[in-house]
Amino acid sequence: MVKRNPHFLNLSESYLFPEVMRRVRHYQQNHPEVELLSLSIGDTSEPLTRSATLGLLNQAEKLGTREGYKGYGLEQGEFLLREKITEVFYPNLIDPDEIFVSDGAKCDIGRLQLLFGQTAALAVQNPTYPVYVDTSTVVGNRSISYLPCTPENGFFPDLSKLADVDLLYLCSPNNPTGSVITKPQLQDLVSWAQSKKAFIIFDAAYSGFIQDPTLPRTIYEIPGADEVAIEVSSFSKLIGFTGVRLGWTIIPKKLRFENGHPVHKDYTRFVTTFFNGASVIAQAGGLAALSLEGLEEMRQMLAFYLENASLIRQELQRQNLTVYGGDNAPYLWVKCASKPSWDLFQTLLEKTGIIATPGIGFGSQGEGYLRFSSFGSRPHILKALERIRTAWPQDW
Amino acid sequence: MVKRNPHFLNLSESYLFPEVMRRVRHYQQNHPEVELLSLSIGDTSEPLTRSATLGLLNQAEKLGTREGYKGYGLEQGEFLLREKITEVFYPNLIDPDEIFVSDGAKCDIGRLQLLFGQTAALAVQNPTYPVYVDTSTVVGNRSISYLPCTPENGFFPDLSKLADVDLLYLCSPNNPTGSVITKPQLQDLVSWAQSKKAFIIFDAAYSGFIQDPTLPRTIYEIPGADEVAIEVSSFSKLIGFTGVRLGWTIIPKKLRFENGHPVHKDYTRFVTTFFNGASVIAQAGGLAALSLEGLEEMRQMLAFYLENASLIRQELQRQNLTVYGGDNAPYLWVKCASKPSWDLFQTLLEKTGIIATPGIGFGSQGEGYLRFSSFGSRPHILKALERIRTAWPQDW
Repeated sequence: MVKRNPHFLNLSESYLFPEVMRRVRHYQQNHPEVELLSLSIGDTSEPLTRSATLGLLNQAEKLGTREGYKGYGLEQGEFLLREKITEVFYPNLIDPDEIFVSDGAKCDIGRLQLLFGQTAALAVQNPTYPVYVDTSTVVGNRSISYLPCTPENGFFPDLSKLADVDLLYLCSPNNPTGSVITKPQLQDLVSWAQSKKAFIIFDAAYSGFIQDPTLPRTIYEIPGADEVAIEVSSFSKLIGFTGVRLGWTIIPKKLRFENGHPVHKDYTRFVTTFFNGASVIAQAGGLAALSLEGLEEMRQMLAFYLENASLIRQELQRQNLTVYGGDNAPYLWVKCASKPSWDLFQTLLEKTGIIATPGIGFGSQGEGYLRFSSFGSRPHILKALERIRTAWPQDW
Repeated sequence: MVKRNPHFLNLSESYLFPEVMRRVRHYQQNHPEVELLSLSIGDTSEPLTRSATLGLLNQAEKLGTREGYKGYGLEQGEFLLREKITEVFYPNLIDPDEIFVSDGAKCDIGRLQLLFGQTAALAVQNPTYPVYVDTSTVVGNRSISYLPCTPENGFFPDLSKLADVDLLYLCSPNNPTGSVITKPQLQDLVSWAQSKKAFIIFDAAYSGFIQDPTLPRTIYEIPGADEVAIEVSSFSKLIGFTGVRLGWTIIPKKLRFENGHPVHKDYTRFVTTFFNGASVIAQAGGLAALSLEGLEEMRQMLAFYLENASLIRQELQRQNLTVYGGDNAPYLWVKCASKPSWDLFQTLLEKTGIIATPGIGFGSQGEGYLRFSSFGSRPHILKALERIRTAWPQDW
């Protein structure tokens, strides 16, 4: 008699985005004539950069030759790629041995759950990327605090509410609010973690979008963070690798469990047991994208998406809406009305054909908000702007 | 104060193959002049087939164009690939909706652990692929039975020992013994699972090596298996995708937990939450490899490895060794001497420079055995044969 993992009962029926797509499909079936425009899931739209593409092609071609063929890569990732990631994103901050290359940040967040067992007390921002909560729930974590991050507190959690927290999940630039944690704020958080011997899981998947040079792009800019923080990051939004699948997680060697055991050691055992490395083709693409030429192409692509964000923000503001984010992040967090988010989602879909993401999908503090993503080709975005201009629900 | 996942304490220090490599590196440092020859980890050596390579190249190139770019794929895998897998491997046996494409069989075995919680009573073959036990241990499963599979019982477990088992892991063709479960045996196992309402996790990652047409290549050849069995499989050994990463798992819609809840539903929730799909490039390569031309190339590559296996077996038999497997599987299971396997491993390394895998790494019944893998180029294999011929330890 095989029993269900009982923790699945504590999950909502479906993960947010499949639920969005389910409702969209239902609407489209009844209105096949409407051309829908998605500003929902954070899915990249621009073709891969030339450098990344060449890196992928070269590796695929090599695998077809006797001299170039290789089988299993290292579970932790190719050394050259880890070295390059260090050089580009963490110079003098971390060591290549502390990087674990993976098939993406979302997958890594799932993997991290099994490092900590079921008794850790967690805290997440509210609103939050739902994967932190859902993956924690599946492994049996029940103690989850939701820290309001709203316009009133500048989207920054109240540290005094963190008394009994072991693991704090932070996302900056934030999904969904588009806010970015400042350096002084991050210093306070690291100090808090040091004093409480807590860990911070820092999701930096959108750090490539940071334009303001005073804002921290990695938590390891803060001295001492390597004793308290794990950072998760990704090539998905940096170079459009959402479908190619490539990310990384940093486990500093100084990070220790309360009994002094190095977290790095358990994670090494974990990835060699549960994982077989990211695709060597994806890794070659990522490496090529971090060449000097590749970095310039990446910069241009990120600037393009930020221009999209700026265009959307301006149009929404013309509708007298309050809009957060979008200057150092690809997401806009839009206060729409004091109506349930799923109603906002549905009304927007029906009036404009635009798919946004209901704020409530990210937590109770998301009620009344919609998240707009700025990923999309320019014609796609311009068409969405036109719809916003001409068909935005005026009764909100 | 962050605690370690306590279940890590129940794991051995390191996963088998990193431990093999650690000892090999140590030996090589002291003997840099020796050319080592690995017949250890089951890692493919032959270049990708032309069809697979073209599939990868076409997809990578498309991603670099505006018309061909796509971002996230479906978490469950591209529909065309699931349809093709069904057509080639499971005609009239399962439905494409029951296939979950992934980044490999090892990763899928890890994922499956979280479906069942911690209370399931497991059974594995002894010897066994260590990942079943290690991944179960990490999630907190403590009830694990080890079913002896030895020459005395034809490497087939004693069903009467399965009284209180919920989940039975079976690997056929077997890693490490190279044995294959026959159709009548598999029928008995399915009947057992039906009567006990237990599940079978059937690892068919090596089924492509089966030459004997009477041997089952999938558990779904047995009527009723779709009510009791999950099958895990992989492109790794079929087309040399060990580094490219592509596999699949089948969760039949008829499979139900004891409370009637469909396993398929929980696994769908799981993959959408913990996973983001296999690389779309790898998926395109896999799809191309299942074309008519690709299948013929695959057949030739598998035949090549089986020829390697046959050559190694003949040479070992000339040393008066008892050799199992290798006719419908890429592994040879070799009874060497009544010495500890790690000593056999070390002596063989020192006398011949050949790296084998110590049988004890697969379980207590592996003591006194070495596993030889038949992956390797022909010159590599011929060189190994020469070493076996001239330098095999005669005092065993």
